[in-house]
Amino acid sequence: MSTMRAVQVVGYHQPLAMAEVPAPEPTGPFDVVVKIGGAGVCRTDLHVLEGQWAEKSGVTLPYTIGHENAGWVHAVGDAVTNVAEGDKVILHPLITCGLCRACRSGDDVHCELNQFPGIDTNGGYAEYLKTSARSVVKIDDSLEPADVAALADAGLTAYHAAAKAARRLTPRDRCVIIGAGGLGHIGIQVLKALSPAELIVVDRNPDAVKLALDIGADHGVVAEGTQVDQVLELTDGHGAEVLVDFVGEGGATAEGVRMLRQAGDYHVVGYGENIDVPTIDIISAEINFVGNLVGSYNDLCDLMALAARGAVTLHTQKYALDDFQTAISDLDAGRVRGRAILVP
Amino acid sequence: MSTMRAVQVVGYHQPLAMAEVPAPEPTGPFDVVVKIGGAGVCRTDLHVLEGQWAEKSGVTLPYTIGHENAGWVHAVGDAVTNVAEGDKVILHPLITCGLCRACRSGDDVHCELNQFPGIDTNGGYAEYLKTSARSVVKIDDSLEPADVAALADAGLTAYHAAAKAARRLTPRDRCVIIGAGGLGHIGIQVLKALSPAELIVVDRNPDAVKLALDIGADHGVVAEGTQVDQVLELTDGHGAEVLVDFVGEGGATAEGVRMLRQAGDYHVVGYGENIDVPTIDIISAEINFVGNLVGSYNDLCDLMALAARGAVTLHTQKYALDDFQTAISDLDAGRVRGRAILVP
Amino acid sequence: MSTMRAVQVVGYHQPLAMAEVPAPEPTGPFDVVVKIGGAGVCRTDLHVLEGQWAEKSGVTLPYTIGHENAGWVHAVGDAVTNVAEGDKVILHPLITCGLCRACRSGDDVHCELNQFPGIDTNGGYAEYLKTSARSVVKIDDSLEPADVAALADAGLTAYHAAAKAARRLTPRDRCVIIGAGGLGHIGIQVLKALSPAELIVVDRNPDAVKLALDIGADHGVVAEGTQVDQVLELTDGHGAEVLVDFVGEGGATAEGVRMLRQAGDYHVVGYGENIDVPTIDIISAEINFVGNLVGSYNDLCDLMALAARGAVTLHTQKYALDDFQTAISDLDAGRVRGRAILVP
Amino acid sequence: MSTMRAVQVVGYHQPLAMAEVPAPEPTGPFDVVVKIGGAGVCRTDLHVLEGQWAEKSGVTLPYTIGHENAGWVHAVGDAVTNVAEGDKVILHPLITCGLCRACRSGDDVHCELNQFPGIDTNGGYAEYLKTSARSVVKIDDSLEPADVAALADAGLTAYHAAAKAARRLTPRDRCVIIGAGGLGHIGIQVLKALSPAELIVVDRNPDAVKLALDIGADHGVVAEGTQVDQVLELTDGHGAEVLVDFVGEGGATAEGVRMLRQAGDYHVVGYGENIDVPTIDIISAEINFVGNLVGSYNDLCDLMALAARGAVTLHTQKYALDDFQTAISDLDAGRVRGRAILVP
Repeated sequence: MSTMRAVQVVGYHQPLAMAEVPAPEPTGPFDVVVKIGGAGVCRTDLHVLEGQWAEKSGVTLPYTIGHENAGWVHAVGDAVTNVAEGDKVILHPLITCGLCRACRSGDDVHCELNQFPGIDTNGGYAEYLKTSARSVVKIDDSLEPADVAALADAGLTAYHAAAKAARRLTPRDRCVIIGAGGLGHIGIQVLKALSPAELIVVDRNPDAVKLALDIGADHGVVAEGTQVDQVLELTDGHGAEVLVDFVGEGGATAEGVRMLRQAGDYHVVGYGENIDVPTIDIISAEINFVGNLVGSYNDLCDLMALAARGAVTLHTQKYALDDFQTAISDLDAGRVRGRAILVP
Repeated sequence: MSTMRAVQVVGYHQPLAMAEVPAPEPTGPFDVVVKIGGAGVCRTDLHVLEGQWAEKSGVTLPYTIGHENAGWVHAVGDAVTNVAEGDKVILHPLITCGLCRACRSGDDVHCELNQFPGIDTNGGYAEYLKTSARSVVKIDDSLEPADVAALADAGLTAYHAAAKAARRLTPRDRCVIIGAGGLGHIGIQVLKALSPAELIVVDRNPDAVKLALDIGADHGVVAEGTQVDQVLELTDGHGAEVLVDFVGEGGATAEGVRMLRQAGDYHVVGYGENIDVPTIDIISAEINFVGNLVGSYNDLCDLMALAARGAVTLHTQKYALDDFQTAISDLDAGRVRGRAILVP
Repeated sequence: MSTMRAVQVVGYHQPLAMAEVPAPEPTGPFDVVVKIGGAGVCRTDLHVLEGQWAEKSGVTLPYTIGHENAGWVHAVGDAVTNVAEGDKVILHPLITCGLCRACRSGDDVHCELNQFPGIDTNGGYAEYLKTSARSVVKIDDSLEPADVAALADAGLTAYHAAAKAARRLTPRDRCVIIGAGGLGHIGIQVLKALSPAELIVVDRNPDAVKLALDIGADHGVVAEGTQVDQVLELTDGHGAEVLVDFVGEGGATAEGVRMLRQAGDYHVVGYGENIDVPTIDIISAEINFVGNLVGSYNDLCDLMALAARGAVTLHTQKYALDDFQTAISDLDAGRVRGRAILVP
Repeated sequence: MSTMRAVQVVGYHQPLAMAEVPAPEPTGPFDVVVKIGGAGVCRTDLHVLEGQWAEKSGVTLPYTIGHENAGWVHAVGDAVTNVAEGDKVILHPLITCGLCRACRSGDDVHCELNQFPGIDTNGGYAEYLKTSARSVVKIDDSLEPADVAALADAGLTAYHAAAKAARRLTPRDRCVIIGAGGLGHIGIQVLKALSPAELIVVDRNPDAVKLALDIGADHGVVAEGTQVDQVLELTDGHGAEVLVDFVGEGGATAEGVRMLRQAGDYHVVGYGENIDVPTIDIISAEINFVGNLVGSYNDLCDLMALAARGAVTLHTQKYALDDFQTAISDLDAGRVRGRAILVP
C-alpha cells in the first residue's frame, strides 16, 4: 500500500499537521480517486479548527481537511463509466447516494445519506482524495485544476444563489447584491451571465465596489451609512425586485429588507445574524426569504460551462502543500487577495 | 340626490354609528355601484375602531366601514362592459388602476395606486357601495351574495396562500396547516381541491381539528404541547415539505419552523409575532419564508369557481344592517361561529 | 445455477414460447433480482411480435418479453441500499445509468444509456427478472404486485402526461381527455387528484364514457360526429385550455386541435397518425403541442402514492403464466376488460 | 375639426393612396392620440394589399394602414393617468379591453375584444393615430420614435419568442435560431441578453450569418444543404435543447425537427408551411412545438428596457410619409436593409 502526504486536523484549537498516510484506493464500484491539483483554503477551514463543526460533523480525529478540490482522475471503481484515468475534474463537495428522493430529483444537495470530504471524512489538503463517480465533473481543456478549485464550494454556492435569483429577473428588474467579496464576486458574474436585470452592488469596501463595477455591476454603492437611501434612489423609491445577501451579519439583513420592493425575493446566502422581521411586514409587503445552500451537481456543471468561456473568473493565490500553515495564516490575517489554493 | 343608510366610523375608540348619507352614483367611466347583499364583519374592523389603521390608511372621518362585500350591480359608468345592472357580484377588496406594472402582470394586489373600500374609502356596511369595473366578479346563479361575502377578503387571502402553496405539492408531499379557524378552514378546502398532498392540520381547539378532518384534512393534531413531535412522527421524522401558517403569533412560527423539512416552504399568512430565525438555519436547511397578502382578481374568480361547485363552503351567521353593534359585539366576544354577515 | 420458466419471443410473426432458462442473479453492484408477482400484457407486446420494434431495439432472439412488472425483491447486489429481500416493489420500465445529465436532472427517461427489459433485454413474463436499484419502487403494504403491475408502464405514461397537463390548470379551466381506454382511464383519475379543472371526456364507446363519469369526469361526450361542437358548447365556444390526447390516430388530432382554446396545450400521448397543422394556425392561436413519453422514477413514486390511498385503481383480469397464449389472444380479440396480467 | 394626411387602402390589388382625412381626437376616457414619429413598413402590409387579411379583419375600405408605430402623445382622454402630452411613446400593436381573463392575467395579446390599428382599424401611415392608454409605452429619452418604431411589432414578436425560449436555457444548453432576417436579428440579440446558452444561427444568406456572428451568435451555419449535419456536429450529435424558427416555410420545419434534441422545444414564429410530424416521433423524442404570437404589453416594456441600454438595435431606412410608394416598392423588391420607416 502506497502512502501520501496529507494535512490533518489533529486536535481542535491546535495547528494543522502534515502526516504520511495511506493513499486512498477505489474499494467501492463507484469510487473515484483524484490526484489533487488544487485545494481551496476556505474560512470554513478556520471554523473547523475552532471546533465549530466538531459536534455537527461527528468526525473522528485525525482526518484530512479541505473541501474545495480539483485535479485529475487517478483510479476508478469497476462501475465508473463517466470518467477515466487522466481526466481533468473538479469535485462536487458532497458524496451523494443517488437513490433517495432528493438525489432522484436533481436536488442531490439534500441527499439523505451524504458525506462531505474535508468536513466529515478525508478531504483535499493532500496528494489524493477518494470521492464518487457522482461527484466528479470533467472540466474544459482550457481550465486548470488549481485555477478552478475554489469554484467547487464557494463558487458553487454563489452560482446556486445567483441562478435561483435570476429566474424571475427581467430587463426592467433590479437586483441588489450585498457583499462583493469572494462569493459576491462570483455571484455578480453569474447574474451578469444569466439575467438581464440591472445589478446594484453594496459593500463597505470601496475597492470591492470598484472591482464589482469592473466585472459587470451597473451601480456600486459604498456602505457608509446611507446605503439604503442610495438603493431606494436607484430604484425609483420602491426598492429592488430581488436581493442576494452574501453577508448575513452585522446588520445586513435589517438594511437589506428596507432595500426590497413589494413582492420581492430576499436571498439569504451569507450567515451569522438572525432574520428578525415582523410577520405583518412579511405579509403586507408580501416578500419572501429564500434560503440558499451549496449548489447541485448540475449547478457545478453549469458553472464550469461559464468558466470555460471566461464568463466567470476568480483571482487565486497559490501555495505549495507544504506551506499550508502560511496559507491558513494569510487567510486569517486578511492577506489573501481572491482565494488561497494549496497545490500539492 | 338619493340617500342611504350606512354604518360609519365617527371616531376611534368610539362605537360605530348609523348615518343617512348620499347614495353613491357612477361618476367615472369605470365606476360600478353595487347594492350590498352581504357585508362581512371582520376582526380587522375591530382593529380599525381601535385606530390601528388610522395613520396607515390616512382616512378622514367619518367614513363607512366594511371591506368584505357582495351584492347586485345597481348602476355602471359609461365604459363598463363586463357587468350590467342586476348582475350578482362579489367584490375584490381593492380598487386598482389597471395601468401600473403590477396590474399589467395580473398581480393587481400590488397596484401602485390602489384604494381599499372600508379601510381608506367608503366600504360596505351600507345599502350601496361604489367600486370599479376591475373589482367586480360575477358569481354563479347558485350562489347568494350574503353567503359568499366573507370569501371576498378572508376567503381570498386563504385561497391565495393555499394556491401558492399547492404549486409544488405532489402526492408524496405533506402540507401542515397551522390554524383551522376562519382562514384555515377555507385554506384546507382549497388545498384539498388544488393539491394531492397529505394535509396535516394543527390547532389548539379540538373542535376546530375535528371540523378540519370533516372537510378533508388527512391528519389532525391538537396543539397541547407535543404538536411538533406529532408532526415529525407523521412525516417520517423529516417534517413537511410545505407549511401554511394561518396563526403567526403566540409562538406559532418557532414551532412551525421545526415542523418543516429541508428545502421546505413556510407560508406566512397569519401575523402578530416576528419571524426570528438564525440565517445559518435558513441556509443549512435551505428553507423559504413566503409572504402572502390578499389574493388577486384572478384568485377571486378561481375561488368563486370552487364555491360554485360546492368545493368551498363557509358557515355564516347573518345580522340585519341595523344590528351592526350586535354583530361587532358578538365577534369581539367570540360568539360568532363561522363568519358574521350584515345583510342590509 | 438454478433455472426458471420464461415466455420468450423466438421469432417474429411466430407465437411466444415457454422456455426453461437460467434464473437471473445479481452480478453488478446495483443489480436487483425481482420475483415477478404480476406482468402486464400490453398492446406493445403484440407489436413486438409483429416485428415492429425489431430494428429499433436491436434485440437478439430468443429473449423474454414483458415490460410491466411488479413483485418482490429476491436478491440484491453489494451496493444496493434502497431495497432488501422481501420488499414488495413495482418496476420502473427502464434501467438507467444515474450519471448522465438527464439522470442527474430527475429526467431519467431520457437517460443516454438506458435499457428496456421486455423490449431490448429480458423482461417479466417469467418467474424472475433482473433490474437495477434505480428502477425499483417500494409499494404500500396495502397494494399487491399483480394489482398494480399494469401501472408500471401504461399507468405511468398516463400519470406523466396528466401531471404535466395539470400544472397549468386552475378551477376555471377545462381539460378535454380524448380516449377513456386503458391509459385514459388512469389519466382521468390522476387529473381528478391533481387538478381542480373541469374534465370533459370524449370517446367513441358509450360504455367508456359512462365509466369516465363514474370515476370523476365532469362531462362525457360520445364521439359520434358532433364531438367538436359539443366540446365547444361546453367551453363557451372557446375550446379547452388543455387537451390530453390518448388516441393520436383515426383523425383524433385534427378534431382535437379544433377543441383547443387560444394559448392552449395539446398533450400528445397516443400515437399513430401525423400532427399536420399549418404553422399560421399554431402561431395565430399560439397553441402548443406537448410530447409525452413514459414517466420518470419520481412519477412512478407519485403514482404509487395515489394508488396507496385508492385514488387510482385499475381493473385487471389475471392469467396464470402458463396461460400466456390465452392472455395474448384475449387482448388481441378485445376480450380483456381493464388490463390482462400474467401471474407466475 | 382639423384634418391630416394619411396613406390608405382604397382597394385590394390597388396602390395605396394619400388622403386628407379628419385627425383623430380622444372621445373615450382612455383614448390616447399619438403624433406619429415613425411607422414601420412591414411585409404584412403587402399582404394586406393583396387582400389576404380582408376576410379575417373584416375592415371597411378605405382605412389607414400601418401597424408598427411610435411617436409623441398629442392628446389624452379624461381617465388617462399613465402618459401626458409630449411623452415619447411606442405603441403596442393591439388595443385591448383590460377586463377579460386574458387581460387580467398579463396575457393581453389574447384579449377577447382586441382591435388592431393598421389591420382592422386606422393605423399609423399618417400624422396621427388614436390608440388607448393601455397600449402606450413611454420610451427612454435616449431613443427616437423613428428608430424604434419597427420594434413595435416585428421586434416585439421576436422578443416574445426569444424570452419564452430563454426560460429553460442554461449555460450548457444550445439554442438554434433558424433565420437571421428582421425578426431573427432581434431574436438573437434578445437571446444573448436573456440567456447564457450557446447560440447557433442558421440562414441561407452568408451575409445574414456574418451579421448574426457580429451581434452575438456563437456559431453560424450557412444553409447550403448540410445544415442539419453541421448543427448535429455542433451539439455532440444530439441536437439543440431549444430551437427558434423564424422562417417556418420552404422545408424549414422538417429540417428543424432533425436539429432538436430529445425533450427539446421547437418555437414556431415564422409561418407558411405545415408542421407535419408523426405523433410517434413527438412522443418518442418527447419534443414540444411552442406557438408564438406577438408579445404582450409587458414584453414591449422589457424590450424597450433592452433598447434603452443599447442591447437591442435595428438598422432602419427612413422615408418621408409622401414617399410611401417608394418604401413599399423597395420592400417588395428586397431593396430595404433592416427596416423601412415612414417619417411624417
